[in-house]
Amino acid sequence: MARIRVVLVGTQHPGNIGSAARAMKTMGLSRLVLAAPEKAPDRDSYALAAGADDVLAAATVVPDLAAAVADCHFVLGCTARSRRIALEQFDPRQAAALCEARARAGSEVALVFGRERTGLENHELQLCHAAVHIPANPAYSSLNLAAAVQVLSYELRMASLAASAPAAAPAPLPAAIVGDGGDRREPPASHAQMEGFFGQLGQALDAIDFHKGRTPEAAMHKLRRLFLRAQLDEREVRLLRGVLADVERTAMLLAAAQKR
Amino acid sequence: MARIRVVLVGTQHPGNIGSAARAMKTMGLSRLVLAAPEKAPDRDSYALAAGADDVLAAATVVPDLAAAVADCHFVLGCTARSRRIALEQFDPRQAAALCEARARAGSEVALVFGRERTGLENHELQLCHAAVHIPANPAYSSLNLAAAVQVLSYELRMASLAASAPAAAPAPLPAAIVGDGGDRREPPASHAQMEGFFGQLGQALDAIDFHKGRTPEAAMHKLRRLFLRAQLDEREVRLLRGVLADVERTAMLLAAAQKR
Repeated sequence: MARIRVVLVGTQHPGNIGSAARAMKTMGLSRLVLAAPEKAPDRDSYALAAGADDVLAAATVVPDLAAAVADCHFVLGCTARSRRIALEQFDPRQAAALCEARARAGSEVALVFGRERTGLENHELQLCHAAVHIPANPAYSSLNLAAAVQVLSYELRMASLAASAPAAAPAPLPAAIVGDGGDRREPPASHAQMEGFFGQLGQALDAIDFHKGRTPEAAMHKLRRLFLRAQLDEREVRLLRGVLADVERTAMLLAAAQKR
Repeated sequence: MARIRVVLVGTQHPGNIGSAARAMKTMGLSRLVLAAPEKAPDRDSYALAAGADDVLAAATVVPDLAAAVADCHFVLGCTARSRRIALEQFDPRQAAALCEARARAGSEVALVFGRERTGLENHELQLCHAAVHIPANPAYSSLNLAAAVQVLSYELRMASLAASAPAAAPAPLPAAIVGDGGDRREPPASHAQMEGFFGQLGQALDAIDFHKGRTPEAAMHKLRRLFLRAQLDEREVRLLRGVLADVERTAMLLAAAQKR
């Protein structure tokens, strides 16, 4: 991420510079270049930067986009206008993967955002190797500048995390499926533990006369399925078996009381 | 996307409601629910909503999160705090894929965002099936509310575009988590149905003296989690409530017998 800079071109409202700095820092980006901003960062910028004032304070101001990307090897221009430009276009995910790969290989990379109202001019897009287009709602595509920076920075962070993950995880399965995700530290219940639980469940259902003459198979089949789907851990099986033990105890006490 | 709502809980600054509405609309989302906002939408909200004033005007205001998600089948809570909560956690991409798949299968889906400073409270996270966590910079994770809504809305749009692409998404989600796979033809249980079940479960545990003087919260917390994780359908809730009814009947008969 240290080789990736964000360039804001011709920004009109200093507040947006601050919001962009904040969006960058939340995603681990810290290099901000301001090309020909209409106004220099001011009190508004710092107010909106919140805790990202360090990013803002370290921002460099240059006279134009050419100066901002002079030492860059890969420059991507963010644009909402998809028709007119003859550049190759990527969505934010593709763009982030490209930027991450280039930066990892040692290139200096720039992600360029244009003016609030009018975006990048054609001669500025000419300086870009490719364009990145956020696939917004065609009926209302007006992301503000900080929102666009947020989306791209987020994708860069996701690309960076994916690339530096130990197993270089391609598409990690949701933890519910894998069964050991999130902060579930308990080991998953074994087949034998689940069968022990189901055996006790069957006895408890008998004890409270749940089946009432019906065959127990249909209900047990459904219960097995839902508890297996939940991918219980060992502690959860113990908890449920504790509940069943109290159910059985209650039923036994009732049976004893009824005999008296 | 029409079955996916955004719920903002306890929003403190009306301006953020407007910014969130704008973020939603840029990504094609339109259903906004405000649970107990500190202030109703005002001029600030409309100013920041810009062209998304229709989303803001159509927003409904409800007294709490439970009311906001009463008819929902899948509720995801956005949280920055990853350690303390015992919910399964997904990143925005996984979360969006799950939401999109559930909505496509006919479920009502809610994406829940907490207060600007303090997020969602624990009792509110209890109403969620899982949590979504934006993997922000650990050194500075302070996304503002609209930025978080922007990132999640963006991922939902990417998921929606991928799913409706002719090339039909490469990595289908496992059926168990999508909730319409295998032979499950029954509609998924709604939030209200699950709460009804949990209420009866609490009573049944009392009736069999499960807690034995301990506070019931810890056990109920774990039980809620495992049953929410299982994503029960309506028939399964009826089956489990039938079991609980027999447990309660057994306990009542015992109590009556012990009085004699």
